[in-house]
Amino acid sequence: MEESMKVDVLIRGGTILTMNPSRRVIHDGAITISGDAISGVYSSDEIPQGLQAGKVIQADGKVILPGLINAHSHLAMTLFRGFVEDLILQQWLERVWKHEFSILDDKAVRAGSKLALAEMIKCGITCAHDMYWHFEQTMEVAEEYGFRLLSGPPITGLGDQKFDEMFAKARKTLAWLDSLEFVYPIIQAHSTYTTTPKMMHTVREFKEEYGITFTTHASENQAEVETVLEKYLQTPIHLLASYDLLDPHTLLAHCVILDNEEIELLAETGTHVVHCPESNLKIGSGIAPIAAMMEKGINVCIGTDGAASNNDLDILGELKTAALLQKGSNHNPELLTTIEVLEMGTINGAKAYQLEDVLGSLEEGKKADLVIMDFDKPHLTPVHDPAANLIYSSGKSDVETVFINGKLQLENGQLTVIDEEKIMAEVRSISKRFV
Amino acid sequence: MEESMKVDVLIRGGTILTMNPSRRVIHDGAITISGDAISGVYSSDEIPQGLQAGKVIQADGKVILPGLINAHSHLAMTLFRGFVEDLILQQWLERVWKHEFSILDDKAVRAGSKLALAEMIKCGITCAHDMYWHFEQTMEVAEEYGFRLLSGPPITGLGDQKFDEMFAKARKTLAWLDSLEFVYPIIQAHSTYTTTPKMMHTVREFKEEYGITFTTHASENQAEVETVLEKYLQTPIHLLASYDLLDPHTLLAHCVILDNEEIELLAETGTHVVHCPESNLKIGSGIAPIAAMMEKGINVCIGTDGAASNNDLDILGELKTAALLQKGSNHNPELLTTIEVLEMGTINGAKAYQLEDVLGSLEEGKKADLVIMDFDKPHLTPVHDPAANLIYSSGKSDVETVFINGKLQLENGQLTVIDEEKIMAEVRSISKRFV
Repeated sequence: MEESMKVDVLIRGGTILTMNPSRRVIHDGAITISGDAISGVYSSDEIPQGLQAGKVIQADGKVILPGLINAHSHLAMTLFRGFVEDLILQQWLERVWKHEFSILDDKAVRAGSKLALAEMIKCGITCAHDMYWHFEQTMEVAEEYGFRLLSGPPITGLGDQKFDEMFAKARKTLAWLDSLEFVYPIIQAHSTYTTTPKMMHTVREFKEEYGITFTTHASENQAEVETVLEKYLQTPIHLLASYDLLDPHTLLAHCVILDNEEIELLAETGTHVVHCPESNLKIGSGIAPIAAMMEKGINVCIGTDGAASNNDLDILGELKTAALLQKGSNHNPELLTTIEVLEMGTINGAKAYQLEDVLGSLEEGKKADLVIMDFDKPHLTPVHDPAANLIYSSGKSDVETVFINGKLQLENGQLTVIDEEKIMAEVRSISKRFV
Repeated sequence: MEESMKVDVLIRGGTILTMNPSRRVIHDGAITISGDAISGVYSSDEIPQGLQAGKVIQADGKVILPGLINAHSHLAMTLFRGFVEDLILQQWLERVWKHEFSILDDKAVRAGSKLALAEMIKCGITCAHDMYWHFEQTMEVAEEYGFRLLSGPPITGLGDQKFDEMFAKARKTLAWLDSLEFVYPIIQAHSTYTTTPKMMHTVREFKEEYGITFTTHASENQAEVETVLEKYLQTPIHLLASYDLLDPHTLLAHCVILDNEEIELLAETGTHVVHCPESNLKIGSGIAPIAAMMEKGINVCIGTDGAASNNDLDILGELKTAALLQKGSNHNPELLTTIEVLEMGTINGAKAYQLEDVLGSLEEGKKADLVIMDFDKPHLTPVHDPAANLIYSSGKSDVETVFINGKLQLENGQLTVIDEEKIMAEVRSISKRFV
């Protein structure tokens, strides 16, 4: 080792859940950050001699993990948090849509997106998907704050966009995204029931041409499946297969209503699935069979969905719910081990978006997106198993420190880049327009 | 109103979720505490003129609710948090039992109980049930700290206690409890599969003689039901009915495996049920049909069960899980409205233990057990519906202030009576004995 190795940050003394399969848990470990990347992951006795760090964080008794990835969301729907409760889906949609069309504008989406970033960083999330109206605003906000966003033009027959205009705009958006550092371009369609075969064929061309990930809602609930069956004589999954859209560069959100044949089809094609357990429960959609999917080798990651149906953007909470649901509904407590659950919240999301080389685990050379959890609390004592405490006992408030791209975004529970008081005031003012 | 009315505490300016059906939500409300009781619940313009308060808490933007009631738990099992993960029930039990018999002593149970109280107060819980070994230690700890405990001698064929000794000891315990202020005596049996008919007949006599509530585990999982069916040719519920133990002074824990006839039987007899959703899921027991029970008029309250199978003592978390589960598994988002869910965590627990005249809602004359939640956070913004934000978006860390019996137990998130650092150190030391 060199005698005067310099790094920007040294975090030492904690338990590191690396999510690197070759060295999963390091007790009394150390991590160094140089610029925007992780420059070393060690146990404390491996720390290079003569290492100089611009900032040292002593993390004894704490737990360090990769930044959590929220693989499916509608960020600015934070504006609708708690607005539509205890209603059946059709009434829910009508109430939300009415306000989306009458109240949402660039400014409102910007405020709702900022609120979402503030909330997510405080929940240990460093990268999130977004699909929503006025999506460029959310992209700009993410870029401004240095938060990783997975987003791209949403293709849908909802609203009044014309076909050619929609795809011309999509091209323009994708060209613009070349200039942004924090927004990873994808192509997305709302669903099979709100798009036409012509739209989906063009989506497929875009996907190939740009080499980007495609994502869409699929088989979220029984009503959707029946609608698509009636119109196309096949289920959403088979319809997507007929569009040649099932492959390792496709990520399907929800997949609650799947039969065994469809699970086989997703597994064979290498299609990814993002599970949104709390939203699926709250709207009454059901429980996605993710244990069965994982058994067949499908890569399952996790998302919060929008805050209108959840009602928060808390991946740790979703992971707990996901694990409990599979164990309980399948009457099998051996399903979804703690490590499998943590993978869903980290590396599996990176894989789904073709970002496993740069995100999702704590390994030298990957981007420095990481979270330090404070475990010095009654509800996290004792620590027989750090991963179990993390999933089943910790809460968002235990997130103490968050780095994204090597930059401190949360320090001792306080946001360092985002002014949360200002954003909350703005959102409260906008929310008064809701009736 | 008198000109110089004096109270000990005045809390003003927040949104009060009273859980009093005649006046459920008071915006810009005020509550006064005098001694150990609530002396007034007002809207701000109703505050008596000339009111003098020893302490004033300005609660603008905050939410005030009754102290949460954890109606089923095994408190000192905090020692086992995260110790037994991802195992089937039989292996789980063997691992826990081995340590219960080899490690647990008075001192360990005392430490585990203190930890449980610290955790629960920080989760807004002011009253909890306990059923465990060395139970007198937990009672003493609750009395010492001024935390309300629902406990009493546990009757079980597990262990090596002799029949006469067990009931003689039960009489002694119940006599002793007369001298304690914070422990509410009950009689409890472990389950129908670990007791004999003779034990249960004597339990029934105790229940009648002392006029106290009886509680037991019942129909927690399929294996239990089959065991009891094989031995007694009837299910646990019918067996309890044959013991004449189903009535409005009985509270059954779990009730996961119930058929419609059993639900009718519980409803007809006025028997109460305590739902432990996260534990039931985590051990693979299943989902209790509480929406169906509530529809038939059964009083359903909520519990965490022990931290060994949960892995925390967080009633707000259980309430969210309970609501999501019923909506999702029944494909009906209209089930379990926010107010019904909050009732499960407050007044329904009080009813189940015959304490609805003193606990469970914020009403003049009831004990001053209450919680103030800080809503000035991104994940609780905006507030379209305070009860929805409370159940679906808040977390334990949003609990800011807790009063029990008029005494401040938590102030700005800090425990005022319990020394958490000392207790955590003690538990960490004991946990090293686990192998």
